[in-house]
Amino acid sequence: MSLEPLRNDLPGFLEAYLPQQLDSAKPFVTLTYAQSLDSRISKGKGIRTTISHPETKTMTHYLRYHHDGILIGSGTALADDPGLNCKYGGEEGYNHSPRPIVLDSRQQWRFEGSKMKDLYLQNQGQAPIVVVSEEPKEREIDVTYLVCPYLSPSRVDWETLLRKLHDEFDIKSIMVEGGATVINDLLLKPALVDALIITIGSRFLGSSGVEVSPIQSVELEAVTWWNGTTDAVLCAKLSGSK
Amino acid sequence: MSLEPLRNDLPGFLEAYLPQQLDSAKPFVTLTYAQSLDSRISKGKGIRTTISHPETKTMTHYLRYHHDGILIGSGTALADDPGLNCKYGGEEGYNHSPRPIVLDSRQQWRFEGSKMKDLYLQNQGQAPIVVVSEEPKEREIDVTYLVCPYLSPSRVDWETLLRKLHDEFDIKSIMVEGGATVINDLLLKPALVDALIITIGSRFLGSSGVEVSPIQSVELEAVTWWNGTTDAVLCAKLSGSK
Repeated sequence: MSLEPLRNDLPGFLEAYLPQQLDSAKPFVTLTYAQSLDSRISKGKGIRTTISHPETKTMTHYLRYHHDGILIGSGTALADDPGLNCKYGGEEGYNHSPRPIVLDSRQQWRFEGSKMKDLYLQNQGQAPIVVVSEEPKEREIDVTYLVCPYLSPSRVDWETLLRKLHDEFDIKSIMVEGGATVINDLLLKPALVDALIITIGSRFLGSSGVEVSPIQSVELEAVTWWNGTTDAVLCAKLSGSK
Repeated sequence: MSLEPLRNDLPGFLEAYLPQQLDSAKPFVTLTYAQSLDSRISKGKGIRTTISHPETKTMTHYLRYHHDGILIGSGTALADDPGLNCKYGGEEGYNHSPRPIVLDSRQQWRFEGSKMKDLYLQNQGQAPIVVVSEEPKEREIDVTYLVCPYLSPSRVDWETLLRKLHDEFDIKSIMVEGGATVINDLLLKPALVDALIITIGSRFLGSSGVEVSPIQSVELEAVTWWNGTTDAVLCAKLSGSK
C-alpha cells in the first residue's frame, strides 16, 4: 500500500523536533503516537483502530526515515503485527527503515510469521532486536537478543536499555511508537525523552478503549501545533528535559 | 479580572459553529469544554484546574456572548462555583450574559453564597434556572425552578428539558460547559447537539483526573482546527446530526 504525498508544510513544522545532538551518550528519543480526542490509542486491547488521516500516516514514515531505531512493547507487536519499516522516499526509503526494537521481557512475541519478517526477507525492513530480561531459552534466526533489567515484566530499565542500544548497537536515535504502557512510562522521563509528537484524530473511541494517561500530571514546553485535513499534530518537549 | 483581547482569527474560525436556525423547535446546543491531552477536564473531582491559555478563556466568553443559556451539572456548580456570565465586550458584555441553567435533580447546590449570585446582584450576570426532578422543598429567592424528568439522578431527559427551555423560557441557544457526566451523555446525542467546540491544552493531567470519554465511539464531521499559543481548538458537528 503506497503512501499519500507528504504535506508540504510538515518538514518545516517537524524540523526542530527531529533527532539532533547525536554526539550525546544516549540516543535521541522521540515519543510519537496517534490518539483519539478521548486519548485512546485503540478501541480495545488487540483491536487495530484507524485514528488518523492517511496524511499523518505519511508523517509517521517520514519520522521513521529520520530515526535509527523504532521501539514498541510486545503487547503492540502481538496485537498489531506492525511492519515498522520506512515507506517514505519510494524504493530508496526502505534503506532508511529503522531497526525494530521489541520490549518482550517474557519472550512472547515471535519474529517467525510476522509482517516484520516478511518485510525483512523482501529487503524492505530490518531484523529486530528483542529486549529480554534473561538469556532466551529459544532463539529465532535473524533476531538479536538484548538482555536488559526490567523493573516489572512490562517496565524496562530505560536508562540501561538506551545506553546499551547506543553503545552496543550504535543506535543514535529511537522513535517510540507504543503501546500505552510504554508511552505512559516514558511520559514521566523528561531526562530521556527529547521530543514528543502526538497526532490527535477527530473522533472519540470511547471509554473501553486503551488509553494514554500517565499516573501523574506532565507539563510540556516548546509546544507547537499543525492542522491537517481532520487531525491536529502537537510537537513539544517534556518540561524538565535538557 | 479582565480578559485578554480576542484573537483576530477566532470569530471567522467559529462563525459556522455559532447558533443559527433559531426558528427550530429546540434550542441550538453547543457542547464546549477544555481538556488536557489525556482528555481530563480537571486534576480530580472538585479540583479547579488550569488547562488552557488565557486567550481561549476569552473565546469562552465570546461564545457566552452568543448564547441565551449556559448549562452545567450540579457537580461542576458545587466544585467550581463558576460565575457563568459574559465578560466579552466590556461593560456592555454583561448584558449578553447567558441564563445559567444548573442540572440539580436533588437540589444540592445553593444560589445563596455563590459567585453566580454575586454577579447577579452586581448586574453582571443572570439568575439561574435550577432543573429539579420534583417540586423543590425549599425555594431560594431569585431562583427559577424547572421540574423535569431524570432517567437517573445525574441523567436528565434531554429532549424534554430542551423543549421546556425553548417553549417556556424562550431560550433559543444553549452552551453546555460540563462537567464530564453531562458531556459524556450529550456526545451520544447527535440529534440534540448542533456544535462541538473543544479546547485542548498542551499538558497531561494524569490518570486520576476527571475524564471525558463517552461509553461508545463517536464520529465527527465538518471538522476544523485552530491553533493558539499553546492550545488547539477543534470545531465539529457530531456525525448523524441534522
